[in-house]
Amino acid sequence: MSIFLKVVPVSEAITTVLRIAPAPGQETVPLGMASGRVLAAAVRSDTDIPGFDRSVVDGYAVRAADTIGASDAIPAILPKKGRVEMGHLPQSAIRPGECIYVPTGGVLPAGADAMVMVENAEQAGDEVLIKKPVSFGENVLLHNEDFSKSDIVLGCGRRIYAQDMGVLAAAGCSVVPVYKKPVIGVVSTGNELVPVTEVPRAGQVRDSNSFMVGAFVQEHGCIPIHYGIVGDDRTVLRATLKKAAGDCDAILISGGSSKDDRDMAASLIGELGEVIVHGIAIAPGKPTIIGRAADTPVIGLPGHPASAFVVLVAIVSHLLDTMAGDRCPKTRTVPARLDRNVPSQKGREDYVRVGVREGIASPLFGKSGLLNTLVKSNGVIRIPAECEGLETGAMVEVLMW
Amino acid sequence: MSIFLKVVPVSEAITTVLRIAPAPGQETVPLGMASGRVLAAAVRSDTDIPGFDRSVVDGYAVRAADTIGASDAIPAILPKKGRVEMGHLPQSAIRPGECIYVPTGGVLPAGADAMVMVENAEQAGDEVLIKKPVSFGENVLLHNEDFSKSDIVLGCGRRIYAQDMGVLAAAGCSVVPVYKKPVIGVVSTGNELVPVTEVPRAGQVRDSNSFMVGAFVQEHGCIPIHYGIVGDDRTVLRATLKKAAGDCDAILISGGSSKDDRDMAASLIGELGEVIVHGIAIAPGKPTIIGRAADTPVIGLPGHPASAFVVLVAIVSHLLDTMAGDRCPKTRTVPARLDRNVPSQKGREDYVRVGVREGIASPLFGKSGLLNTLVKSNGVIRIPAECEGLETGAMVEVLMW
Repeated sequence: MSIFLKVVPVSEAITTVLRIAPAPGQETVPLGMASGRVLAAAVRSDTDIPGFDRSVVDGYAVRAADTIGASDAIPAILPKKGRVEMGHLPQSAIRPGECIYVPTGGVLPAGADAMVMVENAEQAGDEVLIKKPVSFGENVLLHNEDFSKSDIVLGCGRRIYAQDMGVLAAAGCSVVPVYKKPVIGVVSTGNELVPVTEVPRAGQVRDSNSFMVGAFVQEHGCIPIHYGIVGDDRTVLRATLKKAAGDCDAILISGGSSKDDRDMAASLIGELGEVIVHGIAIAPGKPTIIGRAADTPVIGLPGHPASAFVVLVAIVSHLLDTMAGDRCPKTRTVPARLDRNVPSQKGREDYVRVGVREGIASPLFGKSGLLNTLVKSNGVIRIPAECEGLETGAMVEVLMW
Repeated sequence: MSIFLKVVPVSEAITTVLRIAPAPGQETVPLGMASGRVLAAAVRSDTDIPGFDRSVVDGYAVRAADTIGASDAIPAILPKKGRVEMGHLPQSAIRPGECIYVPTGGVLPAGADAMVMVENAEQAGDEVLIKKPVSFGENVLLHNEDFSKSDIVLGCGRRIYAQDMGVLAAAGCSVVPVYKKPVIGVVSTGNELVPVTEVPRAGQVRDSNSFMVGAFVQEHGCIPIHYGIVGDDRTVLRATLKKAAGDCDAILISGGSSKDDRDMAASLIGELGEVIVHGIAIAPGKPTIIGRAADTPVIGLPGHPASAFVVLVAIVSHLLDTMAGDRCPKTRTVPARLDRNVPSQKGREDYVRVGVREGIASPLFGKSGLLNTLVKSNGVIRIPAECEGLETGAMVEVLMW
């Protein structure tokens, strides 16, 4: 076995994780629990929306033709034939030259084809002075205008946000088909790791990755299971990986991913399944492993949290989104102009943290292993492998954290 | 009481909700529960990070001066004085002209000031051939370089994302001071409303808003309490508002917010406290109420979900973010170029839904009450009140859903 990593391009790493991502399972949840979940099937409306011609203003239902030329000075004068009550059908139709009061959301009576807003009318005894003409359909949502019965209202693979909840409710989708949340095992390895409650002695560091990786998994709609800190002990780590492979849909193990003879993640993954990639042309994050333990995808992340985070963003996000069934994940990218030169090494994708403000991206220099640039930045730019750097003034796409 | 709404500008509506937003309470949570919460105090590191000079590569700790001029053809040849084990202090310092093997994350021994990557070195018996020079500090995180003990690592009012979890762990913040999640009462009113499980008859519509508003509240880090559907019954609605005002930190009531004499939300809010705003110069969403029941902020949203959603995005988001203590809420805005003219009425802010793709914003026309444009769009543009419309080719800021 070589002491060097055989690196693959970032694009190949992404293709690889997509290929080994297991298809998500399905379940149903009550609508009230569906927010943030991903639709596992297209949803159709069980009814016409709206189911009737519906006023969108408080005012008077009229025939538009009866309001032609109406003005403040010369209003159209229409006898008022009662009012429509909310939730009920109108008690009568209107005939040409008549009007009926309809509140916002009420049913337009037969014979009417438009609504005059109350602000443009004045009631005088049994008559209404219409002071502004309306056109056909004005201030009305027509029967079926939004969705017809059996129309698809939302497609499969869509993550459900607030506005979608409103549409699912309107469509009568009280029980929602969703993908199961993938369960992701989170393991930290290394003799140098101590729990967050301990003060590290010289040579030791706290286990940051369990918390960072767990939160990242949750942000992508998955459920983390924590297996804690495992020292550099082959037997314990093997047992942990085997257990996690049985419990989980994928495993994220951090530390032990480089080529030092102590770093046993790759050899154990090989023993339990296969190592597909060991080394990605990405900086930071090169010593990353992609493999399987039995059929369970395993990603070996670098031990240093700043490097691990870049790999989470650049590679693991694709695995998690695919496993979650999310076909259109929300990525936040904004265009910005670089305010200084950024050198880069050809042959690897460099992920450079930037602070973005009003369209200007300021690279945060400092070693790639620093946590402080991670929290001082609000995003990252990607410098392609074939590029030797970017110059001041270049337009870049910033992937916002 | 006038039958007309006295509208205020959007900016005044926002100022008003910020003014009446109650300050968030505080609590502490274990770090493992802190993801997505908002810091209620600045967090300082209890230790130096890193607490020692730390290698970021697998390789050889050297004095940089001993590698000057090293190359493949003429390597520097340094005797190897053992190796550093992870989590332990080096057993010895190095003297000029020596090197020690250090794995990634290991402690740099005294006397060394840089690391040579294993890829640029070759071990030959007890000696190591260094084939590339390194500079002072190269491949090393120096003691304190990330954070010093007592440095603020994250500020008050910051929502905690994955990378922040990693930093909090490194800083020893095992118990995290966070703001309490505001509790928001959600009420839907109207005789026309039926539950999602019923098929609406003519004149009826399903209660979409409870689901949409509840999900929006959750997306902003608050906890919804649902009070269900209340008919147009003054006694029941008064009792519901009183109960919600006692249970909750704020109330979002939809329907019953316009000036029709059936619309009783405003008069009940006035009875229980005060109506501060009734009518906002926004389209859609004009008949919005801002007030208080006793000291509890109450927002009266329009009944139609498409209008209610615009008010949630444009106004209520500010209330919720402030109540949650979130000083820097993530808004997703992207610049885009309009691909057609958008007319607008002077004197009100128009919120026009758009589909954005590759920097081009396509307005989705159709009546503002349509749900289908809400789910077919991926964002909204704001046309200021003083503007009569925007022309094809204009650059706009799209607020992404």
